[in-house]
Amino acid sequence: MRDFSAGPQGLSINTATVRKQWKLDRIIDECARRDIRAISPWRDQVAAVGLDAVARRLRDAGVALSGYCRGGFYPAKDASGLAAALADNRQAVDEARALNAPCLVLVVGSLPGALDGHAAHKDIGRARGEVRDGIAATLEYARQAGMPLAIEPLHPMQAAERACINTLEQALDLCDELDPARSGALGVAVDLYHVWWDPKLAAQIARAGRERLLAYHVCDWLTPTRDLLNDRGMMGDGVIELRKVRGWMEAAGYAGHAEVEIFSDHWWAQPGEQVLDTCLARHRSVV
Amino acid sequence: MRDFSAGPQGLSINTATVRKQWKLDRIIDECARRDIRAISPWRDQVAAVGLDAVARRLRDAGVALSGYCRGGFYPAKDASGLAAALADNRQAVDEARALNAPCLVLVVGSLPGALDGHAAHKDIGRARGEVRDGIAATLEYARQAGMPLAIEPLHPMQAAERACINTLEQALDLCDELDPARSGALGVAVDLYHVWWDPKLAAQIARAGRERLLAYHVCDWLTPTRDLLNDRGMMGDGVIELRKVRGWMEAAGYAGHAEVEIFSDHWWAQPGEQVLDTCLARHRSVV
Repeated sequence: MRDFSAGPQGLSINTATVRKQWKLDRIIDECARRDIRAISPWRDQVAAVGLDAVARRLRDAGVALSGYCRGGFYPAKDASGLAAALADNRQAVDEARALNAPCLVLVVGSLPGALDGHAAHKDIGRARGEVRDGIAATLEYARQAGMPLAIEPLHPMQAAERACINTLEQALDLCDELDPARSGALGVAVDLYHVWWDPKLAAQIARAGRERLLAYHVCDWLTPTRDLLNDRGMMGDGVIELRKVRGWMEAAGYAGHAEVEIFSDHWWAQPGEQVLDTCLARHRSVV
Repeated sequence: MRDFSAGPQGLSINTATVRKQWKLDRIIDECARRDIRAISPWRDQVAAVGLDAVARRLRDAGVALSGYCRGGFYPAKDASGLAAALADNRQAVDEARALNAPCLVLVVGSLPGALDGHAAHKDIGRARGEVRDGIAATLEYARQAGMPLAIEPLHPMQAAERACINTLEQALDLCDELDPARSGALGVAVDLYHVWWDPKLAAQIARAGRERLLAYHVCDWLTPTRDLLNDRGMMGDGVIELRKVRGWMEAAGYAGHAEVEIFSDHWWAQPGEQVLDTCLARHRSVV
């Protein structure tokens, strides 16, 4: 297992972690200043600064991407909604490519309208079918662009609104169906916050193997957790066995970054410098 | 599929649903008045009225149990804690028998101390081992008492504090290990709130079959859900496909009650009469 205790190598910052403090150009600079050489930005953060400006800033600062957030959200109320989602995913692939991302992360979506509290229907099976078809279509485009797609299983508590793919096994079943050759074009983003509870986690990480393990996200699960979305913990402050799972990831062949992604009203209220410094310290001590 | 539209047949009230409004003796009377002939009480509610008094009240009112809540919470910090949990589970079996319950529901527990925000350790694998051993010990006692045990998989968002058995598949794997003969002594309580999101739900209900399907709990999943514990919805107010899943249950041979269990600050603030009347109306229209 790699030794992260010496410094920032292996660390990536998902830029949602400090999205309330800074715009993306500042985040890039603050990471570079700490010798954090990888980030994973969100599309809205990129758009706020401008795609070309971000690409230039990354080059100048010597910061690379560990992933690009995000594609997905396929299910829709009708055919025009489905078509719009596919077009949006093609654009996400293009942006990921412009930024030299190693993969585009997919948060696949679920019941259309549920995110606004008004689900158009309750048929999660239908949503799962639309997700399958959507990923298949995006995969065709992404293959030509040379951009791997990483399906991110989301915690079952987000199954209604954000993603109807909720276990690593389910994500890998879909990978096997759409990319049976294990070409590297389709895999998974393993976010520990979403999957830590799964009794099949070790077995499914082993099953995934190097070709399918495209990204690894860390934070922690707090007890109590006060909000279903924005109460993630800093690594070490919760109950997730971070080092044990990284061991499983690396035994399966994963050699990429540990990407810190913390949606947290608490951490968003702290100075960005303090958040990054804490991420770095915890990366060394507990990840 | 059974027709529930005519009246309260097939309906049971888990008494947690109106625990803030009434004591158990009143709940029994209010159910009987509405011709609701089954309830599932909690141990603390029984203790507050007295075991013998509750047994008598049930007989007099013509109300039976659809289950008894609850045994479990096996993992502990040390050997004396583990032994205390086993003793407590034996007592729960005795109480269930005194009340003629058809099964004792097990909420199995997880990381010791996590419920109070101070987990003694983070090893959920260890907790799962202690749960296995604990159920095995209770099963030996419960077999002699003729009291079936129903393992209730809890939603993964409650995996740290309340139950480290989080999918129906995981619960059934344990049933197969501890009761390979499918004797009826060990099975599952399928609470839709906890398992509705599971892509393997239909397959695992079919796998469970009549011998393992000991209880069926209903409520609904709200969007948004504002609290991890006490924001369950009334049937019909959320996104769970209630009738579809009842169809799977009955196709697998389940012929028991649909037990309404709603932990909800909203519904606890309404008059008990209104809550029961709404449960009955929704039982007829959407369950």
